[in-house]
Amino acid sequence: MAAHWRDGAMEPIWKFVEQYMSQFDASHDFHHIKRVVALATTILEAEQKVQTEIAYNKDIVLLAALLHDVGDKKYESPGSADANRIHDLLATHGVPSDIASAVQLVATTVSYSSEVKNPGAVTEVLARHPELAIVQDADRLDAIGAIGIGRVFTYGGAKAGERGMRGCLEHLEEKLVRLEGMMKTGTGKQLARERTRRLEVFQGWWKEEWPVDGE
Amino acid sequence: MAAHWRDGAMEPIWKFVEQYMSQFDASHDFHHIKRVVALATTILEAEQKVQTEIAYNKDIVLLAALLHDVGDKKYESPGSADANRIHDLLATHGVPSDIASAVQLVATTVSYSSEVKNPGAVTEVLARHPELAIVQDADRLDAIGAIGIGRVFTYGGAKAGERGMRGCLEHLEEKLVRLEGMMKTGTGKQLARERTRRLEVFQGWWKEEWPVDGE
Repeated sequence: MAAHWRDGAMEPIWKFVEQYMSQFDASHDFHHIKRVVALATTILEAEQKVQTEIAYNKDIVLLAALLHDVGDKKYESPGSADANRIHDLLATHGVPSDIASAVQLVATTVSYSSEVKNPGAVTEVLARHPELAIVQDADRLDAIGAIGIGRVFTYGGAKAGERGMRGCLEHLEEKLVRLEGMMKTGTGKQLARERTRRLEVFQGWWKEEWPVDGE
Repeated sequence: MAAHWRDGAMEPIWKFVEQYMSQFDASHDFHHIKRVVALATTILEAEQKVQTEIAYNKDIVLLAALLHDVGDKKYESPGSADANRIHDLLATHGVPSDIASAVQLVATTVSYSSEVKNPGAVTEVLARHPELAIVQDADRLDAIGAIGIGRVFTYGGAKAGERGMRGCLEHLEEKLVRLEGMMKTGTGKQLARERTRRLEVFQGWWKEEWPVDGE
């Protein structure tokens, strides 16, 4: 019976996430979630071939990737996200409680800003759930490369007007180019290399195009 | 005396434009205006060296570049822009009436969508005011290259949420890559070549990064 929970659970959980993400702007929409799930799957498959000593749980990877923006602090007002929201949602749809708890913990530990604020918490979760490394790398890969460039300006236009386009470029120069150095899996590092190079090429173009005396 | 109008006119006109543009999102802000003025100046200087048979009026180039988004249809509701708004503004600040009229006509003929709708009108204005070619090229150069990429996603985030990020890329693929073919000055064509190549490189990156089966 335990193996059969996926048959009934996955479709309504995907639907929930699609509905949930429809409240956000295009930088954090359902396409972002689908890309992160695809990237997490790619990383998982590659890592399973080389990191044979680590027993990754595919359900945790997939569900945490799918749910990692549910309750995101950038969009939700404080206190609005129930601490057990993800666990309870999964349990409602028949996901076994141990997986639901692990997904809750992994999904809510993905955030870059939480890691910067409290890296120790990430280390602790990683020790128990190596899946976190995969989901974090997948989420951060979607913040760099051409798609990362599109997302930073989309977010700027939608939510951070006062930042201006130069503020978006500063975000790219100050945060996004550093994500490569925070990648936790070999596959993530490898994929991040090319995408970071793309950010750097873009920065070079920008500097050539922005007028020298432009304030 | 005629030569002295610039001393008093330019500062308040710049201030007016800065104030006017502050109502728009970062894809059409005062920085856009300053970049277009800088590009128009670059093109003018280059064209004056090779197109010695054309007598470009520098005041018309500069003022039309500065004022080309005043009354932009994308942002203004129909009827809100007075037909003589630009002329009257310039006249108030002491700009001679013949220059003010020419700037009014050139500035309101810059728009890409107006040209697509009524190319004949552009041809007519161009015959009387060759400065239009320079201002159009400058405005369109700011829509391509790295800055054009930043602008299309910023506008998407701010004003066209339903378009999504893929809608922004479609806009890039369907409209922006064609602007090079509409450039009217030799200098504009030359600058557009490299910026269009940048759009194409970006498109290639995007295709590699967006999951194959992503809807």
